[in-house]
Amino acid sequence: MKDAFAEVEGSLAGDSYGRGSIIEDFQAEMAAVLGKEAAVFFPSGTMAQQIALRIWSDQLGTKRVAYHPLCHLEIHEQDGLKELHHLEPLLLADKDRLITLSDVQNMEGDISCLLLELPQREIGGQLPAYEELEAISAYCRERGIRVHLDGARLFEVLPYYGKSAAEVCQLFDSVYISFYKGIGAVAGAILAGPKAFTEQAKIWKRRHGGDLIGLYPYIIPAAHYYHQRVDKMGAYYEGAKELAALFNDCRYVSTLPQVPVSNMFHVHIALPKEKLEPLLAAVQVESGIGITRYLNESSEGRCSFELSIGDAYESIPKDELEAAFRLLKQRLLEA
Amino acid sequence: MKDAFAEVEGSLAGDSYGRGSIIEDFQAEMAAVLGKEAAVFFPSGTMAQQIALRIWSDQLGTKRVAYHPLCHLEIHEQDGLKELHHLEPLLLADKDRLITLSDVQNMEGDISCLLLELPQREIGGQLPAYEELEAISAYCRERGIRVHLDGARLFEVLPYYGKSAAEVCQLFDSVYISFYKGIGAVAGAILAGPKAFTEQAKIWKRRHGGDLIGLYPYIIPAAHYYHQRVDKMGAYYEGAKELAALFNDCRYVSTLPQVPVSNMFHVHIALPKEKLEPLLAAVQVESGIGITRYLNESSEGRCSFELSIGDAYESIPKDELEAAFRLLKQRLLEA
Repeated sequence: MKDAFAEVEGSLAGDSYGRGSIIEDFQAEMAAVLGKEAAVFFPSGTMAQQIALRIWSDQLGTKRVAYHPLCHLEIHEQDGLKELHHLEPLLLADKDRLITLSDVQNMEGDISCLLLELPQREIGGQLPAYEELEAISAYCRERGIRVHLDGARLFEVLPYYGKSAAEVCQLFDSVYISFYKGIGAVAGAILAGPKAFTEQAKIWKRRHGGDLIGLYPYIIPAAHYYHQRVDKMGAYYEGAKELAALFNDCRYVSTLPQVPVSNMFHVHIALPKEKLEPLLAAVQVESGIGITRYLNESSEGRCSFELSIGDAYESIPKDELEAAFRLLKQRLLEA
Repeated sequence: MKDAFAEVEGSLAGDSYGRGSIIEDFQAEMAAVLGKEAAVFFPSGTMAQQIALRIWSDQLGTKRVAYHPLCHLEIHEQDGLKELHHLEPLLLADKDRLITLSDVQNMEGDISCLLLELPQREIGGQLPAYEELEAISAYCRERGIRVHLDGARLFEVLPYYGKSAAEVCQLFDSVYISFYKGIGAVAGAILAGPKAFTEQAKIWKRRHGGDLIGLYPYIIPAAHYYHQRVDKMGAYYEGAKELAALFNDCRYVSTLPQVPVSNMFHVHIALPKEKLEPLLAAVQVESGIGITRYLNESSEGRCSFELSIGDAYESIPKDELEAAFRLLKQRLLEA
């Protein structure tokens, strides 16, 4: 926060209820990056995505929308979509795999909008092949179904796809991106799409209580860190592949995906928490490198945690990293 | 923003989804100030107040709530209360006057909650007599009706009532206060009430998309300016009375209320905009003091604008202020 504001003049005028150059310029820049007609800055993705689905549902006259069973809207938003917008989600695919073209082809009944999350965060940040994405988009568009991108981590997947943000977004009618995942700003989101869609989104943003008198405390860090980090996503992705390989070389450990397709992956370790926790703590004390701040424990006595690569990763000297993993590997062999 | 953050260490941990000492300490402080069991920080009052009315309505099992025809929820929120929460407002009183005890006594049908705004901003910041407020509160409570305070400008009315915030809030079941009116911070609000109520409010805050990963960009300025300005409300109130008297001494001009009861009032001038605008511009150029940044024009060719007294008012030398008003008075006499 302080770094982002360091170069801002105290006399710079803030935005005011969605107006002013601070917000309008950033919205225009992001619309151009995403290849969309217009964009709206939101305090949160929760607000932006509920609103996106509501607008498409109102436009198409059906309350049904489709998304993955582990979609953010389904598991992290206290059912805001249902409680506030009375939309009815159709859950596509199984929890542990991506939505496929065949899932979409086999949907029963009408839906207004299909939401796809790239990458699918809750299963380690997996991605469909780009050709499958194109096929899903084409299938929906032929049938008048809107396609919305949960692109919270969109920039993080571009190196793997080898596409620009605008190229990926062309497959979608509306797009949400976040500024505190790989971008690492404070909070905030952009929702982009056709102008008629974003104008509706501004009305809903006010209804939700998100049309704040000043959003600049989030916009300035978002713009600052976007410009600082958007070109580092390739390096983060390479770091993730390197780190995942180190994990996969250890007994009991596997990563999901085995080879990451973005800057993130999940680490699964086939040991119960009471055994793994002291082991990881000892590795941290001895090597000076902390591996995770938490452990999720599954019912079968296995543990998992999520890792995302950012600037901190490259600040760790390679020899120290390798020493830490030699130690981890040794301790797991003895476990 | 920069002033508020100047003394904050860059290493200070932010809040995280409603947790952490930055948010929890400020919520506890505000709960104590307002004499309530608990408090929740919100990005906006729009979000906080819709949620307050929703919780009381769910609890009492009726979708009807009552408020003034010029309530913020009725005229400034794109009908979020109706579109998101499906609540049905009963409008009490006429647009140009306060809600009275008799309006409340004559309500037809059941309501879950009565919202009172102190002061009633859209009619110049008027206030009921404290005894009437007590009588309305007692009447509602006898009938199991919840009373919610729109206290966006609560601190601004305490000098007139001669009461503490907690004393006034005792008459209400739930209270919203704002940090960018008299307090002059960036944005943000507190919603306070019983613990069971605020726990529900946190769930709705997440549903609305207001449970941000970090609200500290608003909390730090809110706390900073609250402490800096809460004790200045008496001086602002005296300034408002002084300034209103200067306006009322001019031809065509009257203030509403005639004698302010807070730091704000409305100025009504019985001249059409095309005549008044150049007149005020000329006074500004000649005196160096700008009187208003906008003029609302009514259908009858009269103009009005709102004034709120803050720190800037006392920075104007008294002799310059009086010279400006001598000039304004003269120009209006000639108009």
